[in-house]
Amino acid sequence: MINEQMYGLGDEPSAIRELFAYGLARKAEIGAENVFDFSIGNPSVPAPALVRDTLLELLEGDPVALHAYSPAAGLPEVREAIAGSIRARYGVPATAAHVYLTAGAAAALACSIAAVTRPGDEVIVVAPYFPEYRTWIEAAGCTVVEVPACEPSFQPDVEAIAAAIGERTSAVIINSPNNPVGAVYTRASLEALAGALTAKEEELGRPLYLISDEPYREITYGAEVPYVPAVYPRTIVCYSYSKSLSLPGERIGYVYVSDFADDGDEVAVAVAGAGRALGYVCAPVMLQRVAARCVNEPSDVAAYAANRRILTEGLAALGYEYVEPDGAFYLWVRALEEDAAAFSERAKDFELLIVPSDSFGVGGWVRLSYCIARDTIERSMPVFAALKQSYE
Amino acid sequence: MINEQMYGLGDEPSAIRELFAYGLARKAEIGAENVFDFSIGNPSVPAPALVRDTLLELLEGDPVALHAYSPAAGLPEVREAIAGSIRARYGVPATAAHVYLTAGAAAALACSIAAVTRPGDEVIVVAPYFPEYRTWIEAAGCTVVEVPACEPSFQPDVEAIAAAIGERTSAVIINSPNNPVGAVYTRASLEALAGALTAKEEELGRPLYLISDEPYREITYGAEVPYVPAVYPRTIVCYSYSKSLSLPGERIGYVYVSDFADDGDEVAVAVAGAGRALGYVCAPVMLQRVAARCVNEPSDVAAYAANRRILTEGLAALGYEYVEPDGAFYLWVRALEEDAAAFSERAKDFELLIVPSDSFGVGGWVRLSYCIARDTIERSMPVFAALKQSYE
Repeated sequence: MINEQMYGLGDEPSAIRELFAYGLARKAEIGAENVFDFSIGNPSVPAPALVRDTLLELLEGDPVALHAYSPAAGLPEVREAIAGSIRARYGVPATAAHVYLTAGAAAALACSIAAVTRPGDEVIVVAPYFPEYRTWIEAAGCTVVEVPACEPSFQPDVEAIAAAIGERTSAVIINSPNNPVGAVYTRASLEALAGALTAKEEELGRPLYLISDEPYREITYGAEVPYVPAVYPRTIVCYSYSKSLSLPGERIGYVYVSDFADDGDEVAVAVAGAGRALGYVCAPVMLQRVAARCVNEPSDVAAYAANRRILTEGLAALGYEYVEPDGAFYLWVRALEEDAAAFSERAKDFELLIVPSDSFGVGGWVRLSYCIARDTIERSMPVFAALKQSYE
Repeated sequence: MINEQMYGLGDEPSAIRELFAYGLARKAEIGAENVFDFSIGNPSVPAPALVRDTLLELLEGDPVALHAYSPAAGLPEVREAIAGSIRARYGVPATAAHVYLTAGAAAALACSIAAVTRPGDEVIVVAPYFPEYRTWIEAAGCTVVEVPACEPSFQPDVEAIAAAIGERTSAVIINSPNNPVGAVYTRASLEALAGALTAKEEELGRPLYLISDEPYREITYGAEVPYVPAVYPRTIVCYSYSKSLSLPGERIGYVYVSDFADDGDEVAVAVAGAGRALGYVCAPVMLQRVAARCVNEPSDVAAYAANRRILTEGLAALGYEYVEPDGAFYLWVRALEEDAAAFSERAKDFELLIVPSDSFGVGGWVRLSYCIARDTIERSMPVFAALKQSYE
């Protein structure tokens, strides 16, 4: 008999993926230019030239050495390059032994969650949150505890998080810059959270892990993004090059277990063990080398900044309510009816693809990915106008 | 608190990986030419030129399209190319919907096992077997049931497998050409196994899955490798391009769920669901395209065939006992003392790195990977002689 839980996960793709697939089919049907697809976070900015240059250079070398297995945690020189970059950029004493290369942030999160939980534990997420957190938490046999963010700032509600921490809590997941709302957690927020976690650790007499999901660290519009391991010692950073280097399909990222954690060595070992259990042999090895070479390559956010301005100004003029994003490339917009799924369905009639908020753990909103062609955003404005008019 | 099971997996790397890591350190210490490293299955034959040519051509294209997310199961055209190749080569009606691209055979196995088992189930493996089967079976909450192969043929012992199938059995894993012994399962063996599984299915009134791990399908020395889905309908093929295209570090392979299985559609969905649960977003996307282009590229086995001849003739002349391999690139050699681990340790004194059989589920043997430089094999002969002499 097949596993019903796995069947269920395969049978009901995430709302994002479902809308993305619908969009692909619809574009084939009526032409790509007639579909306004705000569904998925596929970077629209090309990878930096250094990515291509590095790959071309690598392909000049010996193919046996180039494509060989790396150690499970990654090539030593790649781990050292990443640790060195963390040290230089954030002033923390990062060691290569605490860096574990992964097939993107999804693998990093799945491994980190499996490493610091036991079946029956609880993991706290700040709602709205990236829907796959639920998948990976439940795959580890744990329960999701949703704690709504403060509104309208969408900063973490530290008091509510502290109140939600109980006997079975093993970890809290944060994501700043945030998908889906675009909030960047302030230093004050993070320090308050760190204080609350430390107090709860003392109260419970055991560790509480802070899993910091950071694929959007580089995608900001001026806001400071404090380095979480410098604020809370027992932090596990899950990083991806998907957005910063525009390589989402290549699956390359890493886990960095803070060297400030007194059990950091053990956590790093458990992360590697989880990787083994989940079937990861090593992160794709050419891309490991690309990551090392591009470790300090700046991300090109100019296009996203322009898109953000056009989209927010346009929607503001039409009377839409939204959260001003400080980072990432998503806009969180109030649905025009209570039922976000119904609103998203109605938008489809206008060939407008926007993700309802329900799978992010809250009702009444939609998420717009603006990592798309500027032209699509400009041409979508009359469509957003018509959608709004349909409710008047 | 960290997860003890994951910590254990991270803290005790597989015997193969451990010896491989020892070898790297030892080579750095005394020079690569002075270490005779038969530890790991890292192909020594370069990837076909078409791999490099395809990558160079891909890098000429639009980087946004090239590196974008693919659907979770893989790019439709890649799935179709693989299904088409299966149809053409094996005469079975393979459909793209049953092909799920993975990060290599390890991911394929982890997903397949999770898809067709429930916690508490049993999975049968034929001993000796690839040690990570145990890791993935136990990660799915299941129990490993080891059934020794027939000796000296190392064909599956069909009667013993049938006898081992009980109320909790959900799947049997086979691996032909076999790692570690090099056996290729004959059509007669597979037909007998299929007959036994079908009879047991009827007896139990529920499905039994045959997971066919096939990374060495292309690495043979003349033996026929029957296509398992053509023999047993409820087959799940786990394939990898690691060995056939010499791309082990790139992590690219697939699951193919036989279209003959009456529940094949559901199994394929469950495999995709398991991929999601384990943190796989999509298989590395450039490599998906490489796989599609190279889908019918012949594997270069000439070097392995030559190595096999030199190694077996050399060891035969020295009086070593071994299993004549029909496929893969491993030689299964009788240890010169009962305790294979002690024998492997003694070999280390001669700078000879050979993997003890214990982690493969049987005692008294060692595995030699002969996917290495021919020169190393030739120069190792006096070392094998000295090792033998040390026991006389």
